[in-house]
Amino acid sequence: MRVFPALCLFFALAAPMSALADSLRDHALSLFEPLPERIATLDGRTVTEAEVALGQMLFFDPRLADDGATACTACHDPATGGDGNRPMSMGHAWQGGPQNAPTIFNATLNGARFWQGWDEDLAQAGTRDPYRAERIATPDRMVAVLASMPGYVAAFEAAFPGETNPIRPETASRALAAFASTLLTPAPFDDWLRGEGALPDEARKGLALFIDRGCAGCHQGVNLGGDSYHPLRVARVPGTEALPESGVCFALEEADGAEYLYRAGSLRNITRTSPYFSEGSVRSLPLAVQIMGRSQLGTDLTEAEADLITAFLATLQGRVPPITLPVLPDETALTPAPN
Amino acid sequence: MRVFPALCLFFALAAPMSALADSLRDHALSLFEPLPERIATLDGRTVTEAEVALGQMLFFDPRLADDGATACTACHDPATGGDGNRPMSMGHAWQGGPQNAPTIFNATLNGARFWQGWDEDLAQAGTRDPYRAERIATPDRMVAVLASMPGYVAAFEAAFPGETNPIRPETASRALAAFASTLLTPAPFDDWLRGEGALPDEARKGLALFIDRGCAGCHQGVNLGGDSYHPLRVARVPGTEALPESGVCFALEEADGAEYLYRAGSLRNITRTSPYFSEGSVRSLPLAVQIMGRSQLGTDLTEAEADLITAFLATLQGRVPPITLPVLPDETALTPAPN
Repeated sequence: MRVFPALCLFFALAAPMSALADSLRDHALSLFEPLPERIATLDGRTVTEAEVALGQMLFFDPRLADDGATACTACHDPATGGDGNRPMSMGHAWQGGPQNAPTIFNATLNGARFWQGWDEDLAQAGTRDPYRAERIATPDRMVAVLASMPGYVAAFEAAFPGETNPIRPETASRALAAFASTLLTPAPFDDWLRGEGALPDEARKGLALFIDRGCAGCHQGVNLGGDSYHPLRVARVPGTEALPESGVCFALEEADGAEYLYRAGSLRNITRTSPYFSEGSVRSLPLAVQIMGRSQLGTDLTEAEADLITAFLATLQGRVPPITLPVLPDETALTPAPN
Repeated sequence: MRVFPALCLFFALAAPMSALADSLRDHALSLFEPLPERIATLDGRTVTEAEVALGQMLFFDPRLADDGATACTACHDPATGGDGNRPMSMGHAWQGGPQNAPTIFNATLNGARFWQGWDEDLAQAGTRDPYRAERIATPDRMVAVLASMPGYVAAFEAAFPGETNPIRPETASRALAAFASTLLTPAPFDDWLRGEGALPDEARKGLALFIDRGCAGCHQGVNLGGDSYHPLRVARVPGTEALPESGVCFALEEADGAEYLYRAGSLRNITRTSPYFSEGSVRSLPLAVQIMGRSQLGTDLTEAEADLITAFLATLQGRVPPITLPVLPDETALTPAPN
């Protein structure tokens, strides 16, 4: 008999909460998409297991770099969020790079590649201008290194059957893109979008704020960003006391024009990819949220509001797929020495 | 009926070969030991799964280094033989190290640590003088980094239960040593020593030569080396045309005394750990064999003889245990920024 009032109270409370959650989810589904389970094709081609296996080898191989020591993992470490840990990426032989390395996780689903949009296609990453710090492997040397190892010759033949000359920078890039396409990190937010789980109350409030204040204007779609370029440069910010004045960034943009068109990064795994912005100038995520609100939306988010949005962003931290370290092919007498 | 002569011929040939193989194996067993299946204790303490798991996290974590980018794997890469690929190891922020990084595989079984024997105990590696390039993490900063991440706090508590202050350089070193103790690579040579497989004919000839010429005087025991220091410094050798004159190394040793006491390295996985010697001055294994013969044993090995010994050394290339890349604990607002 005593259970009835409690049950009535439960339903009285639960009904509006459930309606609220549904309404928010409907709204969210009009702006975002859950992460796909897998990516079956790239550029219209089926991704094969042999391509993925080869790409995984290349991704972990420091010998492809001119210095013999800088693998893709140096800046895109799957153990620590798929990005680098330094503000600016280090390229060949610890040359300072010009920008912060974004995460490799879910990068295949980004429509916009690189902070400044140099490349339209992730598979073109290997064929860019050699002055870039990211360009740590010169194509001729990389091909010579790969062709010197029977294990790689066999892996390229398996991945690109029927090609007379399978070891090329383009095929290496395709294999790398195939491996990268497997690096998807489904998150609690995806579960919730699919109706398979709840979001913590603070995260729901943060999501509502995220939509209401306009963050989703740029950070939308399957990756919540990573899809478009915008006229803004985030000024270097040393600490919380040094938030830029409203308008500073827009003034920079006006002065320098298109040079300061920057990508709205994907927010997936953003809790794991500090430091933030293209120059890695900010380490605190709530602070980064406040800076974006001010400089991009002209809205002053309170610390409490930034914390709520951060609680939502935490639901984008995904489950990393298990990655077994490859045992790489053995060098031979023909393998070029590192520079 | 026609099968009998063939069978007789088979037994006529097989009997002496088998006897030869057995005799060589008996001799080999008096000098070498097969790799153990696992290492159950270190310094008298049982190696626990929690220690190993923590050590694996630490081994792959670039954030422990002052530069935030140099994990243990930078110089001891399990994907490419457990060593570095450059002649000289690169330490913190691409500082040139003074020596070539030896492989981490089977290192637990080395009685002699480091090229020059600074440390008696692998677990002391974390507490050495800070001027060393290998010393990429200053202890206070490393402890601050670890203590800032709840994931590490829990992992240290699990690995060192009952300790009031489990996060210390010494416990980190113990965990790293526990993980390293799992990195054993049983090889065809071990199978053969155990009577579970055959060695190729060239490898048997190479092994007989290896023993006959005295190589096993220093390269003996379970790791075929890694157990003792000897008065020699291998001079830098740019190529095959520049083999040092006999006696050059001994002259160096006489001039400089104990500074040139160097470790006889383990020969396990030597086919995968080019370049060779403490300064990584030689990339060809047969050449390295010839140099050792001349400078250490006073014997001029022909190219054919060096090739046979190399064929034997190839049977020491072991099966690498599967290693899953850890997903490392998340940084917090308290985590120190990289220097």
